[in-house]
Amino acid sequence: MTDTPETLFALVAGATETAAIDGISAAGADPALMAHTPSADAEILAYGRPVRAPVVPVSPSGCPTPAVVTRAVHERVDFESVVVDAGLAEPTGAPTVDVRAARGGDVRDPEPVPDAGSIFADARRFGADLPTERLVLAETIPGGTTTAMGVLAALGERRTVSSSLPENPLDLKREVVDAGLDASDLARGDLAGQPTDTIRQMGDPVLAAVAGLAVGALEADTEVVLAGGTQLATAGALVRHAGLTDDLELATTSFVAADDSANVRALAADNDLALTVTDPGFEQRDDHPAMAAYLAGEAKEGVGMGGALALADEAGVGMDSIRNAIETVYDRVTEREAAP
Amino acid sequence: MTDTPETLFALVAGATETAAIDGISAAGADPALMAHTPSADAEILAYGRPVRAPVVPVSPSGCPTPAVVTRAVHERVDFESVVVDAGLAEPTGAPTVDVRAARGGDVRDPEPVPDAGSIFADARRFGADLPTERLVLAETIPGGTTTAMGVLAALGERRTVSSSLPENPLDLKREVVDAGLDASDLARGDLAGQPTDTIRQMGDPVLAAVAGLAVGALEADTEVVLAGGTQLATAGALVRHAGLTDDLELATTSFVAADDSANVRALAADNDLALTVTDPGFEQRDDHPAMAAYLAGEAKEGVGMGGALALADEAGVGMDSIRNAIETVYDRVTEREAAP
Repeated sequence: MTDTPETLFALVAGATETAAIDGISAAGADPALMAHTPSADAEILAYGRPVRAPVVPVSPSGCPTPAVVTRAVHERVDFESVVVDAGLAEPTGAPTVDVRAARGGDVRDPEPVPDAGSIFADARRFGADLPTERLVLAETIPGGTTTAMGVLAALGERRTVSSSLPENPLDLKREVVDAGLDASDLARGDLAGQPTDTIRQMGDPVLAAVAGLAVGALEADTEVVLAGGTQLATAGALVRHAGLTDDLELATTSFVAADDSANVRALAADNDLALTVTDPGFEQRDDHPAMAAYLAGEAKEGVGMGGALALADEAGVGMDSIRNAIETVYDRVTEREAAP
Repeated sequence: MTDTPETLFALVAGATETAAIDGISAAGADPALMAHTPSADAEILAYGRPVRAPVVPVSPSGCPTPAVVTRAVHERVDFESVVVDAGLAEPTGAPTVDVRAARGGDVRDPEPVPDAGSIFADARRFGADLPTERLVLAETIPGGTTTAMGVLAALGERRTVSSSLPENPLDLKREVVDAGLDASDLARGDLAGQPTDTIRQMGDPVLAAVAGLAVGALEADTEVVLAGGTQLATAGALVRHAGLTDDLELATTSFVAADDSANVRALAADNDLALTVTDPGFEQRDDHPAMAAYLAGEAKEGVGMGGALALADEAGVGMDSIRNAIETVYDRVTEREAAP
């Protein structure tokens, strides 16, 4: 036995129709193919490359999905992983655990996640049953920062969220969220202390599953790490609004931490989340298209990238080794695109 | 790189109503709980103990599911694993890949697996896409030897199958299979060369998925190992009746090989399957309830036990080490029963 707790990395993957709003998300180069991004992310985590998904999530500028980084860490650091299907819109070849979630509706609908209560309950039970000392929770859901903002607004928390785009379309997100609050007949803060109602009216199925998993795990005395940026901080806010005061860590990337539009530090402090920021040192490999794109502010986080980097750091695996692994996974993942 | 090919172990889990016929199966102590056995097996493989399934598959005499042995090997030998949901009757907490299979009907129905064609097609595509050098295929489906006998009969192969019971209820199985042939208006051998029609009329969804995975993998030049006894030999027969002549290995346990009622050697020879038999040396630990039960002829095989033991052998992990791991997993798995 080592001092490192036995770790299970759970990627919660799903979809929200909010992603289809023009200009909201960069998760997937082609909007028509974006619905496949979470399915492809799950496959990259599980197998090291897309299997069934007909897309390679790489932006036109060559920025790959953060799944490439998380997988690269997975190939160098020993931990178990599992994918939770929290409303995937498209099939995936990755093995998934089911929490009976349907794809989420548009946040501007009155009730975009009608099944928020049952998803939360299923995930809570599963989180309590999972045999691990530490549960690391991650997300992949295009449009997820907008629904996170919706949840923060309904809870009455500061609504600062990050973006997978270099220029965060905050005005657009606020407009969409305000329309969502109107449609649900809500003012900001109206649903404080009511996490599942909040998700049902303003969230997405991934937030329902992440929050449920976190609550269930904490209730079973399992350590929980929220691996991500402002979406995972929002999951942390939901855990707090569910009344839990346990220690809770938020592990994110230096790219989110450097995003002034997001203010993840304040969001973490508001919700008593211990913030860990890990810098993969991409400036030392800024000639590589993937790493250059992250340095330019693309993607920033997702698929638990920040948490995975923290696991590498904890295991004493140097970031030089991780950067090499990223190159390997990037080549493997993009190779498929070149095939006829 | 070592000389050992990169290996993916795929457990194909499902259900057939055939298992409900009195006296057919020992897979699960209590018949009412038997439907949960494949779900629990998948969890034991994935997590080392049942998670969501409300049962610990241990017979009244203390014989644990072979999942305990396969998991024990998994804890000592490095290979990837995945569970394919080929018609599970009950929920599982293990992550699963979907091939859109429903639970199979009673083999005495005219068409117990109406979706055999689509399951086979989905699995074939998935088998071709899986990024591995070697695919090891395993099963868990109570009642599966009876449907295997049904398939062998319809294909015109010798219908010798093994049993999870010390006394193989062969007469009962033949009676059930004859009723199934009658219901489908078939004589023995009528469906030679027609694997999916055979499964549709006389098989189970797990055989459809295993055969599809094997065919897809072989077509993609992936090495295939059928890990199991007469059910996996039947999958091998289906591959042959699909017209494939590639090398194909059947890796089973010494318990199946010693079962004269099954005659796995002849079944393998008939279908040009290279047979590997691995003996876990349980007689050296015959004071342990699990190992004593296997020595007495219970369970014998399942959940890829024979294939897992062969992987341990190939990796140079001694059977003494595997027996120790079995004790550990057995204690962990049965502990849960003792809890209030």
